[in-house]
Amino acid sequence: MTSPRLTLFALDGLPEFAPGDDLPAIIAAASVQQGVEPGDILAVTSKIVSKAEGRIVAAADREQSITDETVRVVATRVHPGGVTRIVENRLGLVMAAAGVDASNTVEGTVLLLPLDPDASAAAIRAAVGAAVGGEVGVIITDTAGRAWREGQTDIAIGGSGVRLLDDLRGQPDAQGRLLDVTAPALGDELAAAGDLVKRKALGLPVAVIRGLPHLLDPAAPGARSLNRAAVDDLFSLGTAEAREEGRRLERAARGSDTDLRNG
Amino acid sequence: MTSPRLTLFALDGLPEFAPGDDLPAIIAAASVQQGVEPGDILAVTSKIVSKAEGRIVAAADREQSITDETVRVVATRVHPGGVTRIVENRLGLVMAAAGVDASNTVEGTVLLLPLDPDASAAAIRAAVGAAVGGEVGVIITDTAGRAWREGQTDIAIGGSGVRLLDDLRGQPDAQGRLLDVTAPALGDELAAAGDLVKRKALGLPVAVIRGLPHLLDPAAPGARSLNRAAVDDLFSLGTAEAREEGRRLERAARGSDTDLRNG
Repeated sequence: MTSPRLTLFALDGLPEFAPGDDLPAIIAAASVQQGVEPGDILAVTSKIVSKAEGRIVAAADREQSITDETVRVVATRVHPGGVTRIVENRLGLVMAAAGVDASNTVEGTVLLLPLDPDASAAAIRAAVGAAVGGEVGVIITDTAGRAWREGQTDIAIGGSGVRLLDDLRGQPDAQGRLLDVTAPALGDELAAAGDLVKRKALGLPVAVIRGLPHLLDPAAPGARSLNRAAVDDLFSLGTAEAREEGRRLERAARGSDTDLRNG
Repeated sequence: MTSPRLTLFALDGLPEFAPGDDLPAIIAAASVQQGVEPGDILAVTSKIVSKAEGRIVAAADREQSITDETVRVVATRVHPGGVTRIVENRLGLVMAAAGVDASNTVEGTVLLLPLDPDASAAAIRAAVGAAVGGEVGVIITDTAGRAWREGQTDIAIGGSGVRLLDDLRGQPDAQGRLLDVTAPALGDELAAAGDLVKRKALGLPVAVIRGLPHLLDPAAPGARSLNRAAVDDLFSLGTAEAREEGRRLERAARGSDTDLRNG
């Protein structure tokens, strides 16, 4: 029984990106120059996608931008610097500040997430694939916090041509019994692995992951397949917010009594 | 600006482990044979640690074992197969079934997590380090679900000699501004990367990660550093549970009124 041997490296020499840059072409040129091969998977930091796609707003409009990107507020945290909103954004991602980001941006500006990260991934995949003469996979990554654990990991917020969720439910384990609930979130594991070789703050925003060609699948669904719908999520709302909602519900249920008593 | 070049592979030919096996010695022997080098980081699946350490109980005692491993119930999900408890366990990890696992175990048994995964990691690190003639890092990994996202990723539940959380708060970004909240959860990213080359159900439970010797740190804290304390966690309790708690609090606050009205 052998396992894949994996190699990861970051693409070197990419420029600082600006609106209108042809990101797929620039990544494709670097890919050819630096030996990207068919079967490789590229993990591309969303920030350079946002910059090239012009998803830049004035820092003064940051709060309004977060509101605009928000579908649903999940939780809020008040801290000395202000209020952080953890929200479900229009991509279905639960993220602090809706994924609106102020680090490594032009002074006085903030970046919104790409409009359609799966489409951005598909465009990069097409350009790189054509340039290297074979299929590659592409994921678009962002850095996200999580419940219960300190720090952040990179996750896949877009993808094209790569299996992002490996649904093993129904497959037998080594003892021949069915593995009941295992579904490795490959997209997020690829993003996390890529982050180990990227230096996002230092001009190395694209990782190349070599050795997993079996994960390539032209028909693989996009990154929304990694989002758990709020209705299926035991943690769809922050603890404080859910507790407050419970109090409101209880007050509403007793509303007539209360009115009677107070009336 | 160059980035690390990362190589990952799984250790081959490890036996099926049983209670009393000298896991550190067995991994050390395989490490020498398969060319593990000083500076490498080993990601060891917790399941083989549990097996070697005899953390095996009868499947009939599964529910009681989960209760015993539980510090605090975080959420429960009722489904056709029964009730899944998501709990904070004695290691401070929030996990389904407290991390008690039935897959890839001897028929009729389930596995508990290692008693002290940091200590297990330290023992493996010492044995492998001595065998290969230099410092290595070791993490103990387990597979965990998460809020908001489908599927599971591997996370670090134990560690020795590796920096698991890279606290960049206070370091400048490429524009010279301070990165405000970035703290990559390296331990979890290493675990996720390792999972891409392991085949846990097929006898490949140890990944070797080469190319990040700068993450080695003999004084690095253990995996509890990756646990967010419930008091700091906006998602310390499931949404349904918090909502119910809110209703109870509201009823309690109105208790005297209610008694008065009903009395």
